[in-house]
Amino acid sequence: MIRRKAKTSGQPPGTMVFTGEKKVENVRITVLEYSESFSKEREVQSIEECVPEKKKSSVYWINVDGLHDIRLIEDLGDRFGLHPLVLEDIVNIDQRPKVDEFEEYLFVVLKMITYRNDAGKIDTEQVSLVLGNNFVISFQEREGDVFGQIRERIHMAKGRIRKMGADYLAYSLVDAIVDHYFEVLEKTGEQLESLEEELLSNPRPETSARIHGIKRDLISLRKSVWPLREIIGNLERGESGIMKSATLVFLRDVYDHTIQVIDTLETYRDTISGLLDVYLSSISNRMNEVMKVLTIIATIFIPLTFIAGIYGMNFQRMPELGWRWGYFAVLIVMGCIGAVMVIFFKKKRWL
Amino acid sequence: MIRRKAKTSGQPPGTMVFTGEKKVENVRITVLEYSESFSKEREVQSIEECVPEKKKSSVYWINVDGLHDIRLIEDLGDRFGLHPLVLEDIVNIDQRPKVDEFEEYLFVVLKMITYRNDAGKIDTEQVSLVLGNNFVISFQEREGDVFGQIRERIHMAKGRIRKMGADYLAYSLVDAIVDHYFEVLEKTGEQLESLEEELLSNPRPETSARIHGIKRDLISLRKSVWPLREIIGNLERGESGIMKSATLVFLRDVYDHTIQVIDTLETYRDTISGLLDVYLSSISNRMNEVMKVLTIIATIFIPLTFIAGIYGMNFQRMPELGWRWGYFAVLIVMGCIGAVMVIFFKKKRWL
Amino acid sequence: MIRRKAKTSGQPPGTMVFTGEKKVENVRITVLEYSESFSKEREVQSIEECVPEKKKSSVYWINVDGLHDIRLIEDLGDRFGLHPLVLEDIVNIDQRPKVDEFEEYLFVVLKMITYRNDAGKIDTEQVSLVLGNNFVISFQEREGDVFGQIRERIHMAKGRIRKMGADYLAYSLVDAIVDHYFEVLEKTGEQLESLEEELLSNPRPETSARIHGIKRDLISLRKSVWPLREIIGNLERGESGIMKSATLVFLRDVYDHTIQVIDTLETYRDTISGLLDVYLSSISNRMNEVMKVLTIIATIFIPLTFIAGIYGMNFQRMPELGWRWGYFAVLIVMGCIGAVMVIFFKKKRWL
Amino acid sequence: MIRRKAKTSGQPPGTMVFTGEKKVENVRITVLEYSESFSKEREVQSIEECVPEKKKSSVYWINVDGLHDIRLIEDLGDRFGLHPLVLEDIVNIDQRPKVDEFEEYLFVVLKMITYRNDAGKIDTEQVSLVLGNNFVISFQEREGDVFGQIRERIHMAKGRIRKMGADYLAYSLVDAIVDHYFEVLEKTGEQLESLEEELLSNPRPETSARIHGIKRDLISLRKSVWPLREIIGNLERGESGIMKSATLVFLRDVYDHTIQVIDTLETYRDTISGLLDVYLSSISNRMNEVMKVLTIIATIFIPLTFIAGIYGMNFQRMPELGWRWGYFAVLIVMGCIGAVMVIFFKKKRWL
Amino acid sequence: MIRRKAKTSGQPPGTMVFTGEKKVENVRITVLEYSESFSKEREVQSIEECVPEKKKSSVYWINVDGLHDIRLIEDLGDRFGLHPLVLEDIVNIDQRPKVDEFEEYLFVVLKMITYRNDAGKIDTEQVSLVLGNNFVISFQEREGDVFGQIRERIHMAKGRIRKMGADYLAYSLVDAIVDHYFEVLEKTGEQLESLEEELLSNPRPETSARIHGIKRDLISLRKSVWPLREIIGNLERGESGIMKSATLVFLRDVYDHTIQVIDTLETYRDTISGLLDVYLSSISNRMNEVMKVLTIIATIFIPLTFIAGIYGMNFQRMPELGWRWGYFAVLIVMGCIGAVMVIFFKKKRWL
Repeated sequence: MIRRKAKTSGQPPGTMVFTGEKKVENVRITVLEYSESFSKEREVQSIEECVPEKKKSSVYWINVDGLHDIRLIEDLGDRFGLHPLVLEDIVNIDQRPKVDEFEEYLFVVLKMITYRNDAGKIDTEQVSLVLGNNFVISFQEREGDVFGQIRERIHMAKGRIRKMGADYLAYSLVDAIVDHYFEVLEKTGEQLESLEEELLSNPRPETSARIHGIKRDLISLRKSVWPLREIIGNLERGESGIMKSATLVFLRDVYDHTIQVIDTLETYRDTISGLLDVYLSSISNRMNEVMKVLTIIATIFIPLTFIAGIYGMNFQRMPELGWRWGYFAVLIVMGCIGAVMVIFFKKKRWL
Repeated sequence: MIRRKAKTSGQPPGTMVFTGEKKVENVRITVLEYSESFSKEREVQSIEECVPEKKKSSVYWINVDGLHDIRLIEDLGDRFGLHPLVLEDIVNIDQRPKVDEFEEYLFVVLKMITYRNDAGKIDTEQVSLVLGNNFVISFQEREGDVFGQIRERIHMAKGRIRKMGADYLAYSLVDAIVDHYFEVLEKTGEQLESLEEELLSNPRPETSARIHGIKRDLISLRKSVWPLREIIGNLERGESGIMKSATLVFLRDVYDHTIQVIDTLETYRDTISGLLDVYLSSISNRMNEVMKVLTIIATIFIPLTFIAGIYGMNFQRMPELGWRWGYFAVLIVMGCIGAVMVIFFKKKRWL
Repeated sequence: MIRRKAKTSGQPPGTMVFTGEKKVENVRITVLEYSESFSKEREVQSIEECVPEKKKSSVYWINVDGLHDIRLIEDLGDRFGLHPLVLEDIVNIDQRPKVDEFEEYLFVVLKMITYRNDAGKIDTEQVSLVLGNNFVISFQEREGDVFGQIRERIHMAKGRIRKMGADYLAYSLVDAIVDHYFEVLEKTGEQLESLEEELLSNPRPETSARIHGIKRDLISLRKSVWPLREIIGNLERGESGIMKSATLVFLRDVYDHTIQVIDTLETYRDTISGLLDVYLSSISNRMNEVMKVLTIIATIFIPLTFIAGIYGMNFQRMPELGWRWGYFAVLIVMGCIGAVMVIFFKKKRWL
Repeated sequence: MIRRKAKTSGQPPGTMVFTGEKKVENVRITVLEYSESFSKEREVQSIEECVPEKKKSSVYWINVDGLHDIRLIEDLGDRFGLHPLVLEDIVNIDQRPKVDEFEEYLFVVLKMITYRNDAGKIDTEQVSLVLGNNFVISFQEREGDVFGQIRERIHMAKGRIRKMGADYLAYSLVDAIVDHYFEVLEKTGEQLESLEEELLSNPRPETSARIHGIKRDLISLRKSVWPLREIIGNLERGESGIMKSATLVFLRDVYDHTIQVIDTLETYRDTISGLLDVYLSSISNRMNEVMKVLTIIATIFIPLTFIAGIYGMNFQRMPELGWRWGYFAVLIVMGCIGAVMVIFFKKKRWL
Repeated sequence: MIRRKAKTSGQPPGTMVFTGEKKVENVRITVLEYSESFSKEREVQSIEECVPEKKKSSVYWINVDGLHDIRLIEDLGDRFGLHPLVLEDIVNIDQRPKVDEFEEYLFVVLKMITYRNDAGKIDTEQVSLVLGNNFVISFQEREGDVFGQIRERIHMAKGRIRKMGADYLAYSLVDAIVDHYFEVLEKTGEQLESLEEELLSNPRPETSARIHGIKRDLISLRKSVWPLREIIGNLERGESGIMKSATLVFLRDVYDHTIQVIDTLETYRDTISGLLDVYLSSISNRMNEVMKVLTIIATIFIPLTFIAGIYGMNFQRMPELGWRWGYFAVLIVMGCIGAVMVIFFKKKRWL
């Protein structure tokens, strides 16, 4: 993360440096225009096409996939009057989630999180939103997002989305992103459960690396999620009037979800640190068991071997050797010593 | 928990999706109407029957057991003018405990916790309350609750409940839920004590899993209890006027109880982490003991066996072998070495 | 603690249930009346006798030992106009320390802590205070308290107590309780020191249980002490005017003491967790030492025994066996190997 | 750090004691004067040369490399009317980062951090800034800084720097320092990753020292970074009017960066403590593995050696010795015992 | 600490009990009177001599060494109109550092910390300051303090001290005490460094006790230092007007120093807890190493000894024994087994 941030170090503020990897060949811009009575989506080639006309009744959602074309984003910034620092933040994909309030628009940076089943790991993509009076511009690193259902709702006029303004659209985008966190948390929760089962049935040396892996995922999730709380809180209290009061009750709802995500994250953190304790004590218990086996065998046989060693000595004068029942007496003595040891271990509950 | 939440991801806000398992066959609605002079309870079949008439004097308590019938709850919402987000939260049983204030009513989500003796584990059920001017609607996942004594008090006109309004009824329900937490904590406290005894007398490998189990129970209790504090605080400060000042002193009382529940939970957490330390050090002590036995036996007999080995060699010229008292001399030497070892271990306090 | 609280679960608020064990046979009520010019103490049989007359000049201190007589306390509550919730809290001895402000009186719940030398453990007793304009009522679970010196000061007119009002008396009682915490902390401090000495000179398996025991004491002390800070802060800021400004400077003093108690408790907690670390590392060190002894003995003698074993074989053709100095040569080789081992261990600093 | 601070102990406040090591031979003072239309940099020999003239239009940046010449800095202080405590703080290089607001100027102390590739460690240098109406004075311990690009921007008139005042210059300096933290964090992040790889593939005893080393770096970074947040917050809220509102939006940007640095630091701390856990459990796992090998070998061969020992005894009457197939029978028995052991270990999953 | 506090338990507030040990034979009172034009120091025998005359121009510094003479301090209190609780706090040397504001004076309690090189430990002494309009009274437990340089500055008229009032003197005393903390921290820092070196080069069992010792020092330092922050903050915000505004800027300076002391303390705490981890893992590594040596030796020689044991058996019919090259074949087989073992260990990187 930080690695890429370092690229921009020393540049004057407002310098746009794309800090990510180029994930799409061409930047793709789509404009979705809708009002209560209609909706229309089109892909545009130039910036001019996407500037909203002054008729107030429709809402424009301009979506930009791909951030590497600095010049294009600069153009967009000029058209919509965005501050240079905003543009810098859009292309710097290591931004911390935040909201900045300007007179004419709100600027929100979020992290969109998806769980990639194939790679078995969590993918983070930066989404920036600019919310103006009758438009929302969304910037993503690549195509593919979690907004499919919102597009559908707009086209099908499902729910109240077509009846409300750009602020409700922005809310819906934030809500979709936050909702997606639950899916990622669900995956992590499943991993935790399978890890727990593994731990209790068959802990292995690799388990510690798995615990560490999940811990790291949680740490990085935390970094994306905690600032969200502040962001949505700020949006709710916002003074610019861009967020209309009808939308506020919905923001409160997404705020509750954020708290729930954070709660779950913290619970997972507690759980995983508990699992580590279980793991460590299971290692110790195993060691104990190994030691016990060794100790029992050694403690029984070392003295017996010693006795055998004595009668294996070649002294010319060892009276016992000539006794008629000497051999059997020694065997019996050995048996007794072994039995005593076994009883001793039974008493100590090692057997 | 989170698993079920993920079901609703991507839906427009206000979409009602029941996220639990269907625990009752039919939704059961009972209406308990009472005023200072009378009380009447009846089961109703349709929503129409349960809407309070405009005569202000009685209080209506409408209880709904079973949340899977979305249409029915939607109807209820229409009749009482509930916000779509409220309805969504009622059927989404993975809600975080919270209070939402609307102009005409208060909406409270709580977790009802019961200890199931048969399964030996804690059961959580979501209870939602809607408190209006002269009615309380309570939603539960299934039949069976902790409100039996409140019903009895209403029917028998015990205490002041019949003399006070719907806000006092709502308070009583919250109080009953919080009071029940003490019973669950008592069970957990007993488990802790038995665990502690087991630890001090006979720690076993399974103990670590038990410690972890209690820890997990505490973590999930925490998630239900902490938000309570905030909820009751909000009710106390509420500006809507639905909570009347006569009820506030009682809210302060239930607030104190909540703090006490939280205090106890935190104490238990501290205790259990202390128990883990005791457990880990007891494992180490056991290992030490095992090692000592092994070391003592090995250290005494290995050198002796070596000596026996020497005189077991078949060299043709080993003068000692021909000595008259050679065998006995060797035995005595061996005895001395053994005695020295024992003294050494005594000095080291290993024996 | 919680166990007893669960008894009252489900009762209507204000229901008085004595949650403790009956520690005295009969409830004993004493009234100490004093003004600047006189003091008089008497034991009363009925509630009527203890109600202060309307002459403002004297202060009444009514002390109740024993809480199991619900009816009596209810009577008292009636006479003095106490709220039902106050009465409930008085007999529920698992109350969290707190202060409640009413128009006519203040209600304070505290924990009186004493160290019982015979049992070697800490005893907690709940003390409730009701402070009115010219009276203080104190409720205790049993006879015997830490207020002896206050009674003496009243009777002997020592200090300023006879010159000041009921609020100063209440302050004095709180101060006596807080001062007593220092004695308990002193005991705990002594235990900590002896534990530390034991740890450094001769750690034993039981030590871990002792550490855990002190930790538990500290946890339960914490539960009694932390709320105190809040309580005294509230008293200082109190708006009811029952606490007069002349007493406030003394409250500030007792506040300082509370902070000091809390500071000391936290220091003890830090210390004990440090002791646990010392203990755990001493176990590990011991294990190391045991292992070293075993390893040294085994490493020296196992190879030697092997050599002896070789020449103990019965092959018909083993040239060395016939050599004239073979035996002595082998002995010398063995000596050399042993010496090399010893040097090796010296170099590794195991010897 | 503290060591050097102790030098000044006991001096009257305002006494200037240079607490660092002399890192440059001669103090070097450069003055960079610029306005929108021009820029001019010169090295000056005396203080007189560097005092700005009263023409308001240009901004003066006076940079002082080397702090050991107390008299010179005192002179400078006199000319610019700096408070004695400010001068003391400038030469005391163990200052905590802070901002002090005076009527005529702001005084900021920061830590400039650079990663020295050759030594493989982090270098901290104190930078003090005095921001007046039309000048900035910067004090550094030695030549070489992170301000190269700012000088270039001024000379080349890149960005808006030439159009704005001294406050923007001060902001730029702070921004350059904060930006540099990312480079240091990047290095640390790389070390963390290589450490993690090492841990998972081949943990060694030295690894614990490396973990500790990074931890210490993080601790000392923390000390420099945390106060930054407060500093920039104070600058933003500053009442002196020296920071103009046009610069505030940039301060907000650098504030965001600071938060990001802190976030990353805390993430690294969490990660490193996770790595320690992995390391400790890997040690334990290794020990387990070592113990298993020993136990398997010993448990198989000690009983077999005992049997061999029995038939090595020299009793005159040992019937088995005369049996025709005795030797082979014993070999078979031994093979069976060995096989049973191996099966036993397989079942225990030690093999 | 607490032990001595318990002495005063149960006394009426304002009772003076000296809780320390008597460290000086006679109480020694010195009065230092100075104004801008002169300074005069004298030792006085009676309280009368030390009361300032009503001429406002000079500042009086009354220093009292020795606190056991209760009567004398009471006299002093009477003369200067000090509150009984102040006098109680002066002689109770286990006071928590604090500031109390009265109308006519400020009362400050501080801990003066010195590192005693001979005993190798930290010494804490309580210093109480009473700051009036034109006087400062300082109370110390014994002679010898850290104020030498202040006396010198007054006599030599160094710095601004003679030109300013009693509040500046009080500030100077506080500053001297805080400055001294740096010297103690320096010592602790040196100990930490030597401990770290010891740990990395040659950890010993005693090291854990040393770590614990430093930890305890840090804990007790914390107790003295943390309240300081609050104290100086309170002085700065003080409403009594005794602290004049010219002194406030200096208070801010000493406040910064306090923060720095606290920062350093916390850094040390983090460092020492890191050292403990290093220590514990070094113990584990050592154990690993010990185990490896044992395992290697045992694993190589136990099987070989078994083989030797086989051919040491006395069966009459053991064909190998008669083979011509049997002995050498066995030796070669043994050599091979040994070699295989060594290769195995090499592969496992145990060698």
